[in-house]
Amino acid sequence: MQFPKNFLWSGVASGVKRSGRPDLALAYSAFPSTVAAVFTGNKLAAAPVVEARRRVATGGKFRGLIVNSGVANAATGEKGLETNKKMIASAAKRLGLESEEVLSASTGVIGDDLPLEKIEKALPPGVDALEETVNNFSKAIMTTDSGPKVVSAEITEIDARLVGVAKGAGMINPRMATMLVFLFLDHPVEANWWQSTLEKACNSSFNRISVDGDMSTNDVLLAMASDIPEREAVDVDHSAAGMLRGAVEDVCRNLSEMVVADGEGATCLIEVKVSGASDDPDARLVAEEIAGSTLVKTAFYGGDPNWGRIFSSVGASGARVNSEKLKISINGETVFAAGGPQGITEKLEKSMKQQDRHLVEVDLGLGGGEATRLTCDLSEEYVRINSAYRS
Amino acid sequence: MQFPKNFLWSGVASGVKRSGRPDLALAYSAFPSTVAAVFTGNKLAAAPVVEARRRVATGGKFRGLIVNSGVANAATGEKGLETNKKMIASAAKRLGLESEEVLSASTGVIGDDLPLEKIEKALPPGVDALEETVNNFSKAIMTTDSGPKVVSAEITEIDARLVGVAKGAGMINPRMATMLVFLFLDHPVEANWWQSTLEKACNSSFNRISVDGDMSTNDVLLAMASDIPEREAVDVDHSAAGMLRGAVEDVCRNLSEMVVADGEGATCLIEVKVSGASDDPDARLVAEEIAGSTLVKTAFYGGDPNWGRIFSSVGASGARVNSEKLKISINGETVFAAGGPQGITEKLEKSMKQQDRHLVEVDLGLGGGEATRLTCDLSEEYVRINSAYRS
Repeated sequence: MQFPKNFLWSGVASGVKRSGRPDLALAYSAFPSTVAAVFTGNKLAAAPVVEARRRVATGGKFRGLIVNSGVANAATGEKGLETNKKMIASAAKRLGLESEEVLSASTGVIGDDLPLEKIEKALPPGVDALEETVNNFSKAIMTTDSGPKVVSAEITEIDARLVGVAKGAGMINPRMATMLVFLFLDHPVEANWWQSTLEKACNSSFNRISVDGDMSTNDVLLAMASDIPEREAVDVDHSAAGMLRGAVEDVCRNLSEMVVADGEGATCLIEVKVSGASDDPDARLVAEEIAGSTLVKTAFYGGDPNWGRIFSSVGASGARVNSEKLKISINGETVFAAGGPQGITEKLEKSMKQQDRHLVEVDLGLGGGEATRLTCDLSEEYVRINSAYRS
Repeated sequence: MQFPKNFLWSGVASGVKRSGRPDLALAYSAFPSTVAAVFTGNKLAAAPVVEARRRVATGGKFRGLIVNSGVANAATGEKGLETNKKMIASAAKRLGLESEEVLSASTGVIGDDLPLEKIEKALPPGVDALEETVNNFSKAIMTTDSGPKVVSAEITEIDARLVGVAKGAGMINPRMATMLVFLFLDHPVEANWWQSTLEKACNSSFNRISVDGDMSTNDVLLAMASDIPEREAVDVDHSAAGMLRGAVEDVCRNLSEMVVADGEGATCLIEVKVSGASDDPDARLVAEEIAGSTLVKTAFYGGDPNWGRIFSSVGASGARVNSEKLKISINGETVFAAGGPQGITEKLEKSMKQQDRHLVEVDLGLGGGEATRLTCDLSEEYVRINSAYRS
């Protein structure tokens, strides 16, 4: 894997996580970077989100990033905002940067105070460990993830490299940017184009996935593009704009699929494709109702082609629907059409037991509205993880 | 328990349920009855719902009811509608009634054809078994219920008895009348007053509960009030109107709590009370987001006072919120107030482990909006039940 040049990353253990696993991640850019960002839609956003939103909105350039896992610094009021600012200032000092050049993010338990002294103690070893790979960075931002999530791309025309790192296995919801996701690019970009490119990529990736329908207080998608000298910033008119936009979209889509595949307790992926809706909002209603249905998700976990639960979700979604025009298929096999059941083929039974990725297609037969959602099944393991998370 | 007079009920096994458990329920009224009803909001309503909605809307009187469990006769198109009409006609014939005097309801697997011949074979023994108690009726309408749900009341002033029977342990959702619920009253009522009384009772009971947020195709709440001769029909001006309305509400509320308590895999009840919202719709958004959160539900299953997940749901709900004015308490212990965490008392820790009913109170501190929702926790058992239901 080729990492962007002139960036350094590290990940160390500060002791915030009681398990002793890595929980402090640092990123350093040799050059000032243009930052695009998408934040959680949660109205009770965590301290680092409030602060990062403010900092990014100034339109300034950034060179440092500090991320901690274990404690989310959410629901911590004024005190949490102060602690976050101190964390940023300490990181900036250790990285030899101005405080204004550093951003932060946190993930973990909501409502606990962030133990700043532990993080400050871990900063010197964190800075010493800075290296030209995201490997340790990607491990230190994990919470209930089963493994790190890293995707990279090369944009050969402008000799640039893009890497994306994500964490997130719960509180995954399609209504907004989800989880923590960081993108690093070793090429200058025009700020407005970079922001709109990131938002579009987010809509076709992180905004399309769900694990449990819960919306976190800490979701952040940040993309840093560094001002490598003597390069022309990519904007809408640049010859490599399409290629870079494609790379951002690919990286985001691949990361978002990795997040769902690593959904807490997930054993399979379920892609829900809705077409023929009266309009796009109707298609989204149907796709999200199916992808959010615990009954649909448990049926897939059980390897059971129980399409009646999909049918019921279509009717429950609120979208316009006519059962005579409705067509439902699973893994390419039609199960409901022409107003009635079409039977369950042996091929479908087999695919339900054997495949680890399933396709649900719903054609409402009414218009041109379309939507796609990606989710995972719901297993006993999800319950086990989440009933024991704090203890 | 005192059952309404001049009604008979029965429950027998027809073989529709492969387990051989009772699955065919009959109710018979010696006198014509006024029927009020609330039906599912699912736009792909099952055949018996389509038909019952049509029949009740005629304003006619009814004397018979046939209910089958095991197969929902949903997603079955024109054929399902025909099968349902035939089932009603066969039941009417055996009960010695006109087809127009009989209503039907079905519950069970969606998408399977109803095996009418099995039901027709079981009708003679079903009619023979008619008796002056709902005991067997209440068992025959169950699906994944762990036991029958029956609540009765007496309205002494008019010497009347009310009994309610419910089934439902999954696909429970606050957006509409849920599950199958049948009320029987041995007293005449004025039709419009009876309908509005039932709707109000539904709003303060079945429309306030959720188990998994899934909306069924078959939900029906039916209330039969028989025209016992020489009694004055209860209407809004009747001296017993308030007492009867109170009895209907009590029966509905008790049944709805029994349904949640018997929610698939549930080990405890969670009551969510929201106050101080800017308006009632905002309060409902918050209450439903919390009651619908799988993360909140798994935390209660784990006996973990993880109030951060409640906090996050408040912010995710979309309701207007100010963290400085927000107050959250669990089982009477304040966990978040004045913009910050208030700590978790030993008393709270203990109550989380020991109580089988919990109270979550959220005061938004903004206005007079209020809402209450009742839900249950989410356990591995829910997943087990629903991943194996069809097989």
